[in-house]
Amino acid sequence: MTITDARQQLLAANAAAAEALRQRFRRAGTLVVNLISSPGSGKTTLLAATAKALAGKLRMAGIVGDIATEHDADKLRAAGLPAHQIVTGGSCHLDARMVQKALGETAFGELDLLFLENVGNLVCPANYDLGEQFKIVLLSVTEGADKPFKYPGIFSKADVAVLTKWDLLPHVPFDAAAVRQQIATLRPGGVILQLSATTGEGLQGFFDLLQERVARCKATAR
Amino acid sequence: MTITDARQQLLAANAAAAEALRQRFRRAGTLVVNLISSPGSGKTTLLAATAKALAGKLRMAGIVGDIATEHDADKLRAAGLPAHQIVTGGSCHLDARMVQKALGETAFGELDLLFLENVGNLVCPANYDLGEQFKIVLLSVTEGADKPFKYPGIFSKADVAVLTKWDLLPHVPFDAAAVRQQIATLRPGGVILQLSATTGEGLQGFFDLLQERVARCKATAR
Repeated sequence: MTITDARQQLLAANAAAAEALRQRFRRAGTLVVNLISSPGSGKTTLLAATAKALAGKLRMAGIVGDIATEHDADKLRAAGLPAHQIVTGGSCHLDARMVQKALGETAFGELDLLFLENVGNLVCPANYDLGEQFKIVLLSVTEGADKPFKYPGIFSKADVAVLTKWDLLPHVPFDAAAVRQQIATLRPGGVILQLSATTGEGLQGFFDLLQERVARCKATAR
Repeated sequence: MTITDARQQLLAANAAAAEALRQRFRRAGTLVVNLISSPGSGKTTLLAATAKALAGKLRMAGIVGDIATEHDADKLRAAGLPAHQIVTGGSCHLDARMVQKALGETAFGELDLLFLENVGNLVCPANYDLGEQFKIVLLSVTEGADKPFKYPGIFSKADVAVLTKWDLLPHVPFDAAAVRQQIATLRPGGVILQLSATTGEGLQGFFDLLQERVARCKATAR
């Protein structure tokens, strides 16, 4: 077996595990989203703000992946979100079996919305289906306007792109129009949001999107 | 052969190729550095500033890795640095054979200093030796202060850590003392620099370090 064969086998096994998860989530009527970005683009901060804003409206939880540390799960729990940390110990992405295992170790109860916060990495997580209904890619304005075309995999696969740290826009060179054009080329019809978890600007649009998609998920649950 | 065996074989082959490169660079008296960071931390911008500042003082070139696009090599060439782009087409890191192949396709001539700008990714590039004399990890202040302990692989392997976008410090929450402490724990005795390629603050310290290491490399060339 060559390295390519081994990789194909791994991806096929992941696809099967992901499909089983997707059916399980669909039966439960749980919307599952997979959040992917570079390190430090604001995934955890956005989820913490979401947990606070939608507390009492939606039953939510989070599974968080990192190479090392429990920081992110601690931060989410402090914001009131039940959270489970997966420490990958070196792996550059979550995979469907890690999510299966994590679900077996948690007691989240019935959920309307489950966040899967991936390892901070714009490359590898794009290739691993976790059984989610859709992917959200985050890009902070401090990362520069050339990123969608440099990382086409994730920007073509994510249904929703969120431009974060919008409050820093006056301080950095960031051509938002160019970024929107690249994303629209890679993912025609995808949603593009802009927001700042620091000032609160644009957050409501993100909350509305989640609530609307949860409602649609419930309507089609079986 | 299992996936683990295949991976071990791949890493062993890379280590052999990297060692051959290192001997070749040592004989030539060329200092080679491997720059690693998240997407958008400022690797290309720092190299462009370095190319302009040290033009005429050192013979320099760059090999740049990206999943897609030739943006970075174009940007380096515009700054006067001879540059070769490796488009990995999906691979999340450079490896020693890619560098060997790139060297065969370029005509850089005799060099004092060769920059290997890795794919934007804090995880995978840490595991692949490229035959460099040392690694430089960049972390921008906008990425947050929890990163060294979340990505211990690269912060323990990099001889030099550069905190970039220092001009944005007043606008973001970033505990620089905590970051320095994490890095010092992971890499005792490592060098930590802080700079802004936008304002120029701290750049001279980076240039001095490179010139001093080039001189040391020449002194020990054989």
